[in-house]
Amino acid sequence: MALVVQKYGGSSVGDARSVKRVAKRIAEAKRAGNDVVVVVSAMGDTTDELLDLAQQITPLPPKRELDILLTAGERISMSLLAMAITNLGVKAKSYTGQQAGLITDAVHGRARIVDVVPHRIRETLNKGQVAIVAGFQGVTQSTNDVTTLGRGGSDTTAVALAAGLDADVCEIYTDVDGVFTADPRIVPNARKIEWASYEEMLELAACGAKVLALRSVEYARRYNVPIHVRSSFSAHDGTRVSSEDMKPQKLKESTMEAAIISGVAHDRSESKITVVDVPDVPGSASRIFEVVARTGANIDMIVQNVSAASTGLTDISFTLPGSDGPATMAALTAVQAELGFDSLQFDDQIGKLSLVGAGMKSHPGVSARLFAALRDAGINIEMISTSEIRISVVTRADSLDDAVRAVHTAFGLDGADGEAVVYAGTGR
Amino acid sequence: MALVVQKYGGSSVGDARSVKRVAKRIAEAKRAGNDVVVVVSAMGDTTDELLDLAQQITPLPPKRELDILLTAGERISMSLLAMAITNLGVKAKSYTGQQAGLITDAVHGRARIVDVVPHRIRETLNKGQVAIVAGFQGVTQSTNDVTTLGRGGSDTTAVALAAGLDADVCEIYTDVDGVFTADPRIVPNARKIEWASYEEMLELAACGAKVLALRSVEYARRYNVPIHVRSSFSAHDGTRVSSEDMKPQKLKESTMEAAIISGVAHDRSESKITVVDVPDVPGSASRIFEVVARTGANIDMIVQNVSAASTGLTDISFTLPGSDGPATMAALTAVQAELGFDSLQFDDQIGKLSLVGAGMKSHPGVSARLFAALRDAGINIEMISTSEIRISVVTRADSLDDAVRAVHTAFGLDGADGEAVVYAGTGR
Repeated sequence: MALVVQKYGGSSVGDARSVKRVAKRIAEAKRAGNDVVVVVSAMGDTTDELLDLAQQITPLPPKRELDILLTAGERISMSLLAMAITNLGVKAKSYTGQQAGLITDAVHGRARIVDVVPHRIRETLNKGQVAIVAGFQGVTQSTNDVTTLGRGGSDTTAVALAAGLDADVCEIYTDVDGVFTADPRIVPNARKIEWASYEEMLELAACGAKVLALRSVEYARRYNVPIHVRSSFSAHDGTRVSSEDMKPQKLKESTMEAAIISGVAHDRSESKITVVDVPDVPGSASRIFEVVARTGANIDMIVQNVSAASTGLTDISFTLPGSDGPATMAALTAVQAELGFDSLQFDDQIGKLSLVGAGMKSHPGVSARLFAALRDAGINIEMISTSEIRISVVTRADSLDDAVRAVHTAFGLDGADGEAVVYAGTGR
Repeated sequence: MALVVQKYGGSSVGDARSVKRVAKRIAEAKRAGNDVVVVVSAMGDTTDELLDLAQQITPLPPKRELDILLTAGERISMSLLAMAITNLGVKAKSYTGQQAGLITDAVHGRARIVDVVPHRIRETLNKGQVAIVAGFQGVTQSTNDVTTLGRGGSDTTAVALAAGLDADVCEIYTDVDGVFTADPRIVPNARKIEWASYEEMLELAACGAKVLALRSVEYARRYNVPIHVRSSFSAHDGTRVSSEDMKPQKLKESTMEAAIISGVAHDRSESKITVVDVPDVPGSASRIFEVVARTGANIDMIVQNVSAASTGLTDISFTLPGSDGPATMAALTAVQAELGFDSLQFDDQIGKLSLVGAGMKSHPGVSARLFAALRDAGINIEMISTSEIRISVVTRADSLDDAVRAVHTAFGLDGADGEAVVYAGTGR
């Protein structure tokens, strides 16, 4: 008998009919002899509708109140789901984040889990019942205030509960079959990734793959929680994410030689700011990024040109989430005189492509192959950054789809059309 | 400086615009120097929409889950209201029933308040902030489960908080100007009641006046909480409800001689069951009402005919909420052989008129005047029941409006058309 934590996203519980469908799936898992804990998001567009209501009241709602408002969504979905399961003859009880023991810090809107004390969940399992838990929410220990974990927080709730309960697996149900070697809307013959390490999944999630929230993968890696990303609409295996030592044996064997690349992620949400003609003296860059850091913006890539000897001036470019652009531009403009740069350029027409794979650590030549593929497709590279298991490049936004397809093909990731259950990277 | 508890019903916070309007009103009360605690219901039809969602899942939702579901409504309205008040420059924080310390028993769907521990509300007031509290909900002490107080529960939340905080007044805001001498939709020249004793208000609420929930009046009487029922759309005084010794001096004087009647309530929601030809032996009636009691139905009036000496058989009729009819009929049918009655009749075409007034205790002839008024209007009386300060009669449902108008006129309650702020019962 296994202890399974299942998480269902908003698209899996969009209406009463979907709730009943999911309930049936949960009842089956329970009847198959498992202990089942279910984490559920708000139904469909509920969270956006609540946000819209808040916007009708005030453009800047107090974050504590916004958190209380938004948590109403999971309260609705979790109780409906518990009703639907009970209606199938399987006992189920629903619990808020607070009741499930999800203790967070007090940073409303993006609280971090500081402890998981799932006494009531354990009691419920011990009684042979299914426990339904509201995703995305927690409670502060000191003030008993309701917090939310930010978008994608339900994934984190599920992984945290799986860790706290020492579950055998955390199943993340979604409306696609798993994580793919590229976004199937861009690359129709992208293939499902059968298995990825935490590190690979982290890079994919950080670089634009939207199926799993980055924070939940970080949490899973820290507590070594095996994840299984799969579709709530089929019984197919999806993508498993775990530590290297839990890599399935058949994959170890089949990929001894050639498996290099997990997939190609892309991200269209970033913008680029260029600080033009900065005096190239020690401390210039540090002062710029001090100013940017104070706005809370998340810098991604940074490029500094070689200084022209004749002028002693240089350009510094960096990328950041597009939504952080206006505040960052304003902050830099305010210190223009002090820093002595000439001007600022803002560019939101960029796209980022990231090639991810643990294999590239031991395989030289991956960058060369990537650059050649882009060159052959006639795509210009504007910025480059790398980690041990990732290479990212910035291109024009309107070249991004072509870039993804070219790279996907160059690294042998293309499957036959409609092919779905093949491991990505069984090299050829 | 006064401590005021204000309660706003769903019709006062139907949409974002209404929430802002109410927020302005609250901010004004705060700026006028009061400590303000606000209890709020779910917006508009939210509760019905949530109930409908539950019905789409299962016809018999577990009550614990239904309670969690329904409390989402107040979570939304309270946080939006706190945002709107904050937006006006007045600090406000919202609290769930649990956070506000509303401890209840574990009877889901109609929980009773067993304790009020409003530490956080006091803290909030001490900081000079407005406290918003979700109506209708509480939490069990032992299991930390969410409960609801039943329909009209927000009135009870407000009165209970007013008692727990020793507030100067509990203002119940609604979409009408107060409690009227009769329903203005039936009696266009009904007048607003300026003041009523707890006892009178209890009888009015129990007999169909819908402005105040019966339980909240019971609670107010027990803890001697002064209530002020008024419109959220005007600044007019509404109806004040308190103990006799707090009756306004001017009313005491003007009504020394003649004030008898507070108002005429009516109720169309009851049905009548008649048990035909019951053997008239000791224990028959008690057995019938044992069976009925077990269904949980709330019996209102009971009439037993004089037994016909020749047959030794009698008829027993009683009224009960129409919604309890089917279950009660089924329970009685099941014991028909045992009880030996001939048949059952079910009649949902009845109406109940109730004349309420503390003055009738010391004024004989009230019943005679009531019966004469109905006779003159050609209306047949089917059942009668009385209390110290109330006389109720059952008529045909389609005669009820005429009956209300006739009695309202006969007791001198009619005001000039459009007259609104006159005490009802300043006798003539």
